[in-house]
Amino acid sequence: MNTEPLPATAALDRIRVVLSHPSHPGNIGAAARAMKTMGLSRLVLVKPKVFPDAQADAMAVGATDLLVQAEVVDTLAEALSGTVLAMAMTARRRELAVPALWARDGAAELVAQAAAGEVALVFGNETSGLSNDELALCRRWAMIPVNAEFSSLNLAAAVQVMCYELRLAALDPGLPPAISGAGLLASHDEVERLIAHIERAALSSEFLDPASPKRLIARLRRMFSRAAPEKEEVNILRGLFAALEKAAETRIENKT
Amino acid sequence: MNTEPLPATAALDRIRVVLSHPSHPGNIGAAARAMKTMGLSRLVLVKPKVFPDAQADAMAVGATDLLVQAEVVDTLAEALSGTVLAMAMTARRRELAVPALWARDGAAELVAQAAAGEVALVFGNETSGLSNDELALCRRWAMIPVNAEFSSLNLAAAVQVMCYELRLAALDPGLPPAISGAGLLASHDEVERLIAHIERAALSSEFLDPASPKRLIARLRRMFSRAAPEKEEVNILRGLFAALEKAAETRIENKT
Repeated sequence: MNTEPLPATAALDRIRVVLSHPSHPGNIGAAARAMKTMGLSRLVLVKPKVFPDAQADAMAVGATDLLVQAEVVDTLAEALSGTVLAMAMTARRRELAVPALWARDGAAELVAQAAAGEVALVFGNETSGLSNDELALCRRWAMIPVNAEFSSLNLAAAVQVMCYELRLAALDPGLPPAISGAGLLASHDEVERLIAHIERAALSSEFLDPASPKRLIARLRRMFSRAAPEKEEVNILRGLFAALEKAAETRIENKT
Repeated sequence: MNTEPLPATAALDRIRVVLSHPSHPGNIGAAARAMKTMGLSRLVLVKPKVFPDAQADAMAVGATDLLVQAEVVDTLAEALSGTVLAMAMTARRRELAVPALWARDGAAELVAQAAAGEVALVFGNETSGLSNDELALCRRWAMIPVNAEFSSLNLAAAVQVMCYELRLAALDPGLPPAISGAGLLASHDEVERLIAHIERAALSSEFLDPASPKRLIARLRRMFSRAAPEKEEVNILRGLFAALEKAAETRIENKT
């Protein structure tokens, strides 16, 4: 058995999203859109009440290709044929259950098992969920943590959350690096010269007590460290302080 | 200074979800439902195209109470008033940017900062997103990782993913704050007053051309966004600029 991690796209390509007995075609379309934004493509529908349908197409926006390719079957057993693992989403704790996983752990397990073959994530009807017979066909259960006082997660919203978790699980540890700003960072020396400039301006304006300027300047240095200013920003600030310093010097000249 | 982690419900109660210029009332309702399933309740709408509306109510299902209580304002600045941190959701990498966080890290940071006060998560218009001026008002940016070939995440679906991450971040007390500064963060209003003060000082010292101060001030706002200054740092800078302004005024008096 091959259990090497797969490339992210290969793992996502092995995950079927199964909607069992969905009532509202709009939810099917919205689910397709949710899947595609996260890089999933394989939609399986068990006895949809209305499908295909214009409302499904409308809600899918640019993901109608998933609707065209969707497999429509009569039973959940058919939908799961050929899979190595089926995981059922459930909205409530049930008796007689394999312990349920939280969404994040469930997604990680599905992605891990995709290394061994096809897997399925199964969502029940909007109102009644999955039947006990359907649940019995699934080896794992997963739950999205919800507000106990209002657990009414929309079907497509649940698909969105799970596909998001599946995408992250498939990308892990390959999440793209932190997204960086565009400008050229100021050098250490440039920032130090800015701080020295501020200190000079603060002394000339009599804001700082020359005997103990240290603490305030240390605070500003810390702030500029966090800011990681760009060259242009340092230049703006130095220009501003030069103008203010000049004004302060003029005043001192006028005084004497 | 209180930066102890809050109980989960208390943290979620301090998070405003701000929808700026939403076009479709159905999305407002679906966003309210998404929020409530995750235990969030505070919806703020900036100039919604159509609101209130029957379609919003229909999509909210059992979350119409959030629509009734929603605050409707004219500008993003009003929506952010009183917050200690505003985070903008963005769908694409932009130039001239504060580094963006991935959704999960962004949610952890918002929840951590909620210990210090009110925070906001800001979503832009369905088609055009947030304007550059709106982005400039937000001190952090976050992105949901999407399929590069189909990034068309529905607005309410994005709200669902982020509220799910916020709920998990609030439930997990073990996450360290992403901002490592020890002090209490300056509020949005305090930072804005600092920027207004700098602009005034720059004009009085004749550093800025009164006809076109916009770009330089925008650059400084961005830098302060990244820095996430603490209250004490803002106070130091305002004291310094007040002293320099006073000097500049004296010079102008002496001139005349």
